[in-house]
Amino acid sequence: MQTATPRQPESVAPPKPIPLAPSIDLPERRRYRLKNALLGQPLHTDQLVHERLGKPTALAVFASDNLSSVAYGTEEIITHLVPYIGLAAFAMVMPITIALLVVLGFLILSYRQTIKAYPSAGGAYIVTRDNFGLLPAQVAGVALLTDYVLTVAVSVAAGTAALTSAASALTPYAVLIAVAFIVIIAFGNLRGVKESGRIFAVPTYFFIATMVALLVVGFSRMFFGHLPVQSIHKPGMIPAGHGGNGFLMGATLFVVLRAFASGGAAVTGVEAISNGVPAFRRPEWKNARSTLVVMGSTLGAMFFGLSWLDAHLHVNAYAKGTPTVISQIGKVVFGSGPLGHVLYFALQAGTTLILVLAANTSFADFPRLASFHAGDNFMPKQLTKRGHRLVFSNGILALSAASIFLVVITQAKVDRLIPLYAIGVFTSFTLSQAGMARHHIKEKEEGWRRGLFINATGAVLSLVVDVIIAITKFKPAGAILGAWVIIVLVPIMVYALTRLNKQYEAEAAELEGDAKAAAEAPILRRHVVLVLVDGLDRSTARAMQYARTLTPDDLRAVHVAYDADHAEKLAEEWRRLGLARFPLELVDCPDRRITRGVLEVVAEALDGQTEVTVLIPRREYRRFWHRLLHDRTADSIASAVSQLPHANVTFVPYHLGTEHQPEVHA
Amino acid sequence: MQTATPRQPESVAPPKPIPLAPSIDLPERRRYRLKNALLGQPLHTDQLVHERLGKPTALAVFASDNLSSVAYGTEEIITHLVPYIGLAAFAMVMPITIALLVVLGFLILSYRQTIKAYPSAGGAYIVTRDNFGLLPAQVAGVALLTDYVLTVAVSVAAGTAALTSAASALTPYAVLIAVAFIVIIAFGNLRGVKESGRIFAVPTYFFIATMVALLVVGFSRMFFGHLPVQSIHKPGMIPAGHGGNGFLMGATLFVVLRAFASGGAAVTGVEAISNGVPAFRRPEWKNARSTLVVMGSTLGAMFFGLSWLDAHLHVNAYAKGTPTVISQIGKVVFGSGPLGHVLYFALQAGTTLILVLAANTSFADFPRLASFHAGDNFMPKQLTKRGHRLVFSNGILALSAASIFLVVITQAKVDRLIPLYAIGVFTSFTLSQAGMARHHIKEKEEGWRRGLFINATGAVLSLVVDVIIAITKFKPAGAILGAWVIIVLVPIMVYALTRLNKQYEAEAAELEGDAKAAAEAPILRRHVVLVLVDGLDRSTARAMQYARTLTPDDLRAVHVAYDADHAEKLAEEWRRLGLARFPLELVDCPDRRITRGVLEVVAEALDGQTEVTVLIPRREYRRFWHRLLHDRTADSIASAVSQLPHANVTFVPYHLGTEHQPEVHA
Repeated sequence: MQTATPRQPESVAPPKPIPLAPSIDLPERRRYRLKNALLGQPLHTDQLVHERLGKPTALAVFASDNLSSVAYGTEEIITHLVPYIGLAAFAMVMPITIALLVVLGFLILSYRQTIKAYPSAGGAYIVTRDNFGLLPAQVAGVALLTDYVLTVAVSVAAGTAALTSAASALTPYAVLIAVAFIVIIAFGNLRGVKESGRIFAVPTYFFIATMVALLVVGFSRMFFGHLPVQSIHKPGMIPAGHGGNGFLMGATLFVVLRAFASGGAAVTGVEAISNGVPAFRRPEWKNARSTLVVMGSTLGAMFFGLSWLDAHLHVNAYAKGTPTVISQIGKVVFGSGPLGHVLYFALQAGTTLILVLAANTSFADFPRLASFHAGDNFMPKQLTKRGHRLVFSNGILALSAASIFLVVITQAKVDRLIPLYAIGVFTSFTLSQAGMARHHIKEKEEGWRRGLFINATGAVLSLVVDVIIAITKFKPAGAILGAWVIIVLVPIMVYALTRLNKQYEAEAAELEGDAKAAAEAPILRRHVVLVLVDGLDRSTARAMQYARTLTPDDLRAVHVAYDADHAEKLAEEWRRLGLARFPLELVDCPDRRITRGVLEVVAEALDGQTEVTVLIPRREYRRFWHRLLHDRTADSIASAVSQLPHANVTFVPYHLGTEHQPEVHA
Repeated sequence: MQTATPRQPESVAPPKPIPLAPSIDLPERRRYRLKNALLGQPLHTDQLVHERLGKPTALAVFASDNLSSVAYGTEEIITHLVPYIGLAAFAMVMPITIALLVVLGFLILSYRQTIKAYPSAGGAYIVTRDNFGLLPAQVAGVALLTDYVLTVAVSVAAGTAALTSAASALTPYAVLIAVAFIVIIAFGNLRGVKESGRIFAVPTYFFIATMVALLVVGFSRMFFGHLPVQSIHKPGMIPAGHGGNGFLMGATLFVVLRAFASGGAAVTGVEAISNGVPAFRRPEWKNARSTLVVMGSTLGAMFFGLSWLDAHLHVNAYAKGTPTVISQIGKVVFGSGPLGHVLYFALQAGTTLILVLAANTSFADFPRLASFHAGDNFMPKQLTKRGHRLVFSNGILALSAASIFLVVITQAKVDRLIPLYAIGVFTSFTLSQAGMARHHIKEKEEGWRRGLFINATGAVLSLVVDVIIAITKFKPAGAILGAWVIIVLVPIMVYALTRLNKQYEAEAAELEGDAKAAAEAPILRRHVVLVLVDGLDRSTARAMQYARTLTPDDLRAVHVAYDADHAEKLAEEWRRLGLARFPLELVDCPDRRITRGVLEVVAEALDGQTEVTVLIPRREYRRFWHRLLHDRTADSIASAVSQLPHANVTFVPYHLGTEHQPEVHA
């Protein structure tokens, strides 16, 4: 029953201007031309192809969120130890780092399972939905969405801190710089920056190279030469508490756990690869698995090395966040020679770049995850719509707005953002690992016992970390924001999403009904056409010509008399011209509410057996400013009349400046 | 040919809720309910009645702009003399004041003529239009409109200065207070504060009473006691220049003329009564004339007395504008006793009130004048539309925005606003007096020679004052704003208004054509109905039912395939249901621009002999947030398709949540 389409399908083509159907010569609208200028030529749906990535490129594409955590991981541990236990903090850095590396190890083992079991899309949302159902999936998804927002905010804030550490003159503009980073990334994503390996490889490997340089030079000088131990009492640094003599064990445990929780931010981003398995070369899951291991090991090595250097050098953090710990370590390790300066600035540049790239990762993940929610009717449908350049534009805009909001209210301070961070990601880890455990029990594939052990341990570990974060960072002293925000927000959002879902489902159920019977239902007994008349001119005349095309049972010309003088003149002119076929009805409208007046006339004409068509002559203006000179009563009438069942509104256009009308050749 | 209207005309009734026609039970929309809550019940057109005013009340209604000028007149003269000629300034105050009173005298004589000749509406716009034509009338009108904006800004700024002079703690909030005054006045006017004599009488006569007290006490103490002469060198005062020894005569003439020009602001507002003659009791023009004379004499007496007091007391102005000169004089004259304090605060309160009332006068005049322009097709039509409460709401909003802008950029400083002021009003005086002179020559009514002499002299005097203002206040040293703004703005606006007029006239000419022939023109050969299908549901089915009502020659169901999977599913379901009467056409849309796709399909169907009706099933949602969950593609399709001639768009509503549909009893 599908007829031939009048237009030929476009062949799968490289980006080029879309040719219009040959028979039509219609000018494009201004808004569309602006879009093209800003975002580039539109992309066709069939251009939605993903490039396949080799392992080194895949590492570059997926690892930035994960690897960039090194930039603040050690600092976050130190910041939460020194004020309470002073120099003893540096004795605790390595144990806490190692504990986090154990967590990291289990996460990697767990996600190796996920990659194998869900080679097409193994995000927490999908895994949780498949194994526990839609509602728990909303929890996992929402938790992850909040964390993507925080990834952007934290990464951009940390990237700005890396920049202002090297160029302190920029410090007063930190918030502005951070917001600018977000705007630039968002713009790039709206243009549809491809997950192109080439672009991503440069900063990622550059960062790894500078970190390797830092660690190699650092350890060489530590073991074979001398690295000066720093004072933790420089002005502007966070104040050191008393040392390890005689403090309460309970309080210390809390302090250590809080430092652990803060450092937890360093092991986020592990899930990225499991979301993108199909982008790998064949065999996808095997390549993805080994890339995951390489990524985890790289992060582990860098984190371990940096913490060790810090424990040795006693580098304390500054209260205002800059210069960062990593910047201070870089200065000490590379020294003050010319080569040292070059290496130091390279380190800061690499750190800034990878952090900005990490923010960019969320701009790929958030809109995609939001589109999953929306596809399941749990978020507004608009999030499933691919924009001009095939990206989920609405998701990108939402993420930008939320992260800019966070950056502004926290003044781009990493330390104020961290308490909100990681809790969401560990919630989703917990759910997705638990889902994997369930998956093993259900499916009983080869080696499922081992898998169950790994994923169950992963789930329990994630849950423990999550609880530690929730408790120790619930509301940091002196701060307003804390984990409580997320703990409050996630249930509220999940509730909102389920209400949304109910609404969508109810609408769908109502719309489904018996469509065939409805489509073929007998038409109503009568058809009344009302032509709304404001003046006796060609636009009205055009509407009356069209009205006769409809061959109605009753054709009425109606004027809502908002101005008695005008109405009288109109009636007289009407009489004079003798438009006998169309008697004009005048409807009193002493309150000048034309819309309401029309609504009442229409409502009276409806009797359950009558179809009413309201014809509104609408003048179409050639230029934007010409349209501005007239009010938009027509639109408001249309929207009001549509409230009534069987009241149909037709705009009959009349084109002013007709010599410039778009031509139609047919 | 006018049929009986289905609703009974409302009787001329006191304000009460409008009863809905008995047959209809439609809920009001949220926006309308909000409007009612904010602005009060809507007013009926027939409630547009003006009360007739007795002379004392009329004085209160029309005099505030005029009388309130006393609050800054003397100060403006002093401010522009002291820095150049020092103590000699106080010798020049009275001559300049007297010169201004001569101008005032001629204006009053001139306007007495206008009132008699134009008893129904004697504003500068009407008089100029009648005697010189539409274009000069635009100049007069635009000049006057700019001046109304400045009246609001100057009055509110001066009112704020009067307030902060008495309560100096409020000084830092001056801009905020001034803006708040404008917002409150605008709100009051949107609610449709009647030009009610009772409300206006209180502040006007209160102000006159406090001024009388000031002058009586001041002159009593001056003649029968002692008033201490002030130092003009207090900290914060404008610095005094060297005295009258050896300065150049040319420079002094300029200084004196500039002081005269600045003082010119004091004699504005004379035209108010001529705008409102019909509001007087019979015989209108006689009563208006005598009220005009009383107003002018009152202003003259107050201005004269205040300048004399100032010349005697040597009160200098402060650089930042507060305390004002009148406030300083009040303090000296009333002294520091308890009664003196009470009188002083009464003086400041009276000054503040009359100034705010003066601003309110512009809120009556500006929208009315703008509606005259718009009625002659020289301003956007929207300015002729009476709003919810019968006032010209759009004019009120425009005036508020413009005057708030001015107050903010000048930081509510009277002295920064004055250079822009009065030039507009004297331009309109010149034109309207010249128009009156022409009127006398044409009409040669009784006593026309005397009238001609008076109006010609008035015109010449106004022109001289206007030229003096334009030259001496063109760009005050150290300021950015000056008379040049108005001199540049008025021609630009007049040009814009004439372009607007050409556009409106061209549209009207095009629309007029032969409406009867067009209305009775034969209908086109074919009628094609396109039903836009997005899914196979009841809203689509409803559109198809309606489509058959139209009995078209060709009925097509069209789906624009923005998503290939969705399109395939839809086509299959369509086939399965066997909707034989409606073959479904799929239109390729690889760029996902549904609007463009529809446009192309419609354009192809048009051939100059075919009427195309595009049916868009539109779901109507019960709640605002439900609608937000869906995109508004329907609207954008409608507006795009309307670009094409003979392409008519019909919204076929489908109501979700039908159990709550508005009921129609008929």
